Amino acid sequence: MTAQGPIAAEIESGGGAWRFPANQPLRLDSGATLAPLEVAYKTYGRLNESRSNAVLICHALTLDQHVASAHPTTGKPGWWARTVGPGLPLDTNRYFIICANVVGGCMGSTGPASTDPATGQPYGLGFPVITIGDMVRAQAMLIEALGIETLFAVVGGSMGGMQALQWAADYPKRMQSVVCIAAAARHSAQNIAFHEVGRQAIMADPNWRGGAYLAESVRPEKGLAVARMAAHITYLSEAALQRKFGRELQRDGLSWGFDADFQVESYLRHQGASFVDRFDANSYLYITRAMDYFDLAANHGGSLTEAFRKARAVKFCVLSFSSDWLYPTAESRDVVRALNAAGCRASFAEIVSDKGHDAFLLDEPQLDQTLRGFLEAQASARGLK
Amino acid sequence: MTAQGPIAAEIESGGGAWRFPANQPLRLDSGATLAPLEVAYKTYGRLNESRSNAVLICHALTLDQHVASAHPTTGKPGWWARTVGPGLPLDTNRYFIICANVVGGCMGSTGPASTDPATGQPYGLGFPVITIGDMVRAQAMLIEALGIETLFAVVGGSMGGMQALQWAADYPKRMQSVVCIAAAARHSAQNIAFHEVGRQAIMADPNWRGGAYLAESVRPEKGLAVARMAAHITYLSEAALQRKFGRELQRDGLSWGFDADFQVESYLRHQGASFVDRFDANSYLYITRAMDYFDLAANHGGSLTEAFRKARAVKFCVLSFSSDWLYPTAESRDVVRALNAAGCRASFAEIVSDKGHDAFLLDEPQLDQTLRGFLEAQASARGLK
Repeated sequence: MTAQGPIAAEIESGGGAWRFPANQPLRLDSGATLAPLEVAYKTYGRLNESRSNAVLICHALTLDQHVASAHPTTGKPGWWARTVGPGLPLDTNRYFIICANVVGGCMGSTGPASTDPATGQPYGLGFPVITIGDMVRAQAMLIEALGIETLFAVVGGSMGGMQALQWAADYPKRMQSVVCIAAAARHSAQNIAFHEVGRQAIMADPNWRGGAYLAESVRPEKGLAVARMAAHITYLSEAALQRKFGRELQRDGLSWGFDADFQVESYLRHQGASFVDRFDANSYLYITRAMDYFDLAANHGGSLTEAFRKARAVKFCVLSFSSDWLYPTAESRDVVRALNAAGCRASFAEIVSDKGHDAFLLDEPQLDQTLRGFLEAQASARGLK
Repeated sequence: MTAQGPIAAEIESGGGAWRFPANQPLRLDSGATLAPLEVAYKTYGRLNESRSNAVLICHALTLDQHVASAHPTTGKPGWWARTVGPGLPLDTNRYFIICANVVGGCMGSTGPASTDPATGQPYGLGFPVITIGDMVRAQAMLIEALGIETLFAVVGGSMGGMQALQWAADYPKRMQSVVCIAAAARHSAQNIAFHEVGRQAIMADPNWRGGAYLAESVRPEKGLAVARMAAHITYLSEAALQRKFGRELQRDGLSWGFDADFQVESYLRHQGASFVDRFDANSYLYITRAMDYFDLAANHGGSLTEAFRKARAVKFCVLSFSSDWLYPTAESRDVVRALNAAGCRASFAEIVSDKGHDAFLLDEPQLDQTLRGFLEAQASARGLK
């Protein structure tokens, strides 16, 4: 419930954690309910008087609400600090930016590490399985609680892009525009497979303790690190790995052992080791499961077009990256085709980049330009200053 | 030293394990030596009187010498039973087929599970790090011991293809032809990264015991299964996974838990679980390391062309699969370019297939035809009946 003061001097930031009382449960797609529900969020910029300049950013699997301000655990800059700020594509002089930690997460929103009111212990595997739809429903509760009727835009990359599409399907009257970057309308077999490897790595760690590790004061760090390493490869491209690391060695000559000989090994080990400091293993299980379950068409009679049928007043921007093999351009094209068939207005761009899926977080001028251009056009059309 | 009788009625098979005495050590690229050395092998067909019809097959990472006869542990048909046999592309009526378990392996050749003569215990991590060059050197010792001066062909897919190229570089006078399928002349950063994930999964398993698990009567089965699951995804293609599994469920409806909901999860879990029954975790570490270290140009002043300079009398056939993202066609083209620059005669084909890397083990008529055609042309040119 702590409202935080500004972190970066140049961005007015706020936020806190909204706690919904037990009589306002989150109704889950599984049929279960979650209460009490807490939604941790950050804001940047100011809400205008007409409450018409709010942009909701939806975060990816392992990211969080700290979009443009220092991460409280790592102290590193926000994950989209290069995109959100004064004069940046998501201009905090113009827009009021909101980002909420997803339900199931581990940065303040209710998740498997939260206390189960029924037991007084951390939920662990007693936490209900959640969906992308549940994440969005919790965000909608927050947005309503904040007194915002209509969002200017819902913007997200990767799992955030899935949420943005789900927003359009579930709350088509509550946003003017949607930006979906490097995502898809459903998770492919290959993506499910990679997630399953990560989950098995976590569950194979004896310190996982059937999900009850927090009560036993241990953490499945090795398993979670392996999960992260496997996933991290999928966020890059072969070309990016070759360019960044190739077969470069850590030292002169080979070790003739199992130390990290190659720079790419050392890099991956570092990715695994640093991840466990900031992420909860059970949250990783639940959020990857939500992504695997995601299939926007499935809840609309198998038709993605039907999913978007009520969103004809929403303007869409769909972006993909040419070297993204986790969410290849073909899957973004499927989204655009369904949007067109539903009568929605959608602009689409495949951004040529060799940086793979992670390109949405990196220095990609064409991404900045496209994002800025789309939002400015929408803002002008709506008379937003 | 047991010579085995025929297993499949239609193929005359033989083989055994050749034990080189301590005074015939294997000299390793690391500078170490390995003695005594045992090389387990299988043969199919008959060596002709002029000893001119011998074909050496080099096996891939997790395969073995049981090419065309039942696997002694699993009872399953040989991994290339559809390619090696009477009337098949590697026709046992015509050729004498030899396949040896690689040094470092776990199917009879000396590896980390073998007894270290210095301690009387399994080597474990006391086993020296080996290379693709060491594997080939051990095979060359076997071929010489079998009294075969010149091989008609050296044939291999994946890591077997790496060995075939290494044979051409190291023993250019000892074969007439080389077939390299779905391989590369060096391991890419992405491939090293995936191997490192697998190794970390094994070493994260507390039952790994610093590599000394055999002495403690445990096995890092969970870690090895995770390693196999991660690797297995890379052997397929996204299209093949989508076609085979898509988002098909195991049962009607979702489990809302962490059971295997999707068929692709169940399939992967099965791949992991069945692998640990037939493979040794330390062998997995050592053989993946050998693949990571593989860089044929590196030992020739950085020039792949130089590596092949002495192989101008050898006929090469290089094959790739269009959907193989582990060893993409571009890497086979690099090999062909170097062969051409070295003045070697090479035919090359990219076989259009959506089956990914594993296509070399599967029903691919174009592979069969190309393999048969290349070998028959060589056989005719050499007057082989």
